[in-house]
Amino acid sequence: MQIDIITLFPGIFPGPLGESIIGRAMDKDIAQINAIDLRKYADDARGTVDDKPYGGGPGMLMKVEPLVKAVEDLKKPGSVVILTSPRGERFTQNAAFELSGKEHIIIIAGHYEGVDERAIELLVDREFSLGDFVLTSGNLAAMTMADAIVRLLPGVLGSDESSVDESHSSGLLEYPQYTRPPEFRGLHAPEILLSGDHGKIEAWRREQSERLTRERRPDLWEIYLKTMEASSNEHTRQDS
Amino acid sequence: MQIDIITLFPGIFPGPLGESIIGRAMDKDIAQINAIDLRKYADDARGTVDDKPYGGGPGMLMKVEPLVKAVEDLKKPGSVVILTSPRGERFTQNAAFELSGKEHIIIIAGHYEGVDERAIELLVDREFSLGDFVLTSGNLAAMTMADAIVRLLPGVLGSDESSVDESHSSGLLEYPQYTRPPEFRGLHAPEILLSGDHGKIEAWRREQSERLTRERRPDLWEIYLKTMEASSNEHTRQDS
Repeated sequence: MQIDIITLFPGIFPGPLGESIIGRAMDKDIAQINAIDLRKYADDARGTVDDKPYGGGPGMLMKVEPLVKAVEDLKKPGSVVILTSPRGERFTQNAAFELSGKEHIIIIAGHYEGVDERAIELLVDREFSLGDFVLTSGNLAAMTMADAIVRLLPGVLGSDESSVDESHSSGLLEYPQYTRPPEFRGLHAPEILLSGDHGKIEAWRREQSERLTRERRPDLWEIYLKTMEASSNEHTRQDS
Repeated sequence: MQIDIITLFPGIFPGPLGESIIGRAMDKDIAQINAIDLRKYADDARGTVDDKPYGGGPGMLMKVEPLVKAVEDLKKPGSVVILTSPRGERFTQNAAFELSGKEHIIIIAGHYEGVDERAIELLVDREFSLGDFVLTSGNLAAMTMADAIVRLLPGVLGSDESSVDESHSSGLLEYPQYTRPPEFRGLHAPEILLSGDHGKIEAWRREQSERLTRERRPDLWEIYLKTMEASSNEHTRQDS
């Protein structure tokens, strides 16, 4: 997979993406992550890529032409073009899964007050937002999405770093975890986890996951219940 | 404000936070962002900070002792201790506002499969998640939160980078924006924006924001309608 991130700050890449798991994926050539300097596509020698909004208002916008030039230069058949934007659909694990099936992703890291709407109309397949908060730029959002996508590629996670048995895949939040020592400042790891009884351990973890999800994320809990119900109806039909 | 980020990868900081707006805030000493190497607080010379989960399962957990030592070393009266965690409450602009009022924030960047639950019990005031997706570590989440918080501090944004008139502050998504040229590949900037009629421009932008919010984020739209209704009832009471 190739991810090209169009940015005003190419120097910050790969940065955090160069370390650890994603860094290894790049070393093994499973993923290439390139930072593309938008200023290279400016019309003037000064590298101007921003201008004042028509109609007034604070801040500057990213101009349409340099973005169009950059994307047209990078695009291949099958490329997906993403814009980081507070207006976008929420980035989720489902989106990460879907995007991990693509060969080539271009991410435009939004900057300034926003992007000329015509660039979005002409270029962008999907606008994604990490969440309902405002960042100084889309660079951290672009890195975060790249991280979530690349870690799902085959061969990226080690065998002990399963991407299946984890939060947001089962539809439940993760159960509490403990490691040595068995006691710390009067706090004990639950005895059941030390019991060696794998059936009981699994039941306890499931119970804890369900409790946490119910308490903290009623929205996920509701979806989970519906999924369970649908799958149990499915089994009943198959049995009859 | 001081933000201490406890991490296994101190080398990636400040990284993206050293550039642009947040970099300037650090240069002006409005915010200090420090990366704290968790391995410094390990018990052994090898810097071991992780161990296998009790009860089995994939991956490694962050051990309780090094985290307790690190946080106790850093903590001051009034410090807030945050853990990045897929199980946490969702990080939002409201949380960013609230946290921007603190003097000292300690962020534990979660890693591996998770953190010994006792460390959370003993140390953590708030668990935050960026959203429903899985990352290779909490480092990008920690950076993202720091970015959202620091940009709200007085003196960080320039006068032309208002933090008031923007997405997620008004409760509406941002209206489409345009800048020069007036026409590009047959696409024209809306005439109204070139009209100079500020009343009409404002009405058009409000209308577009409302339309986009209604279409793309019915959840925000509903909250917005309730807020408007409540404030109009308030006015009625004051008038009568």
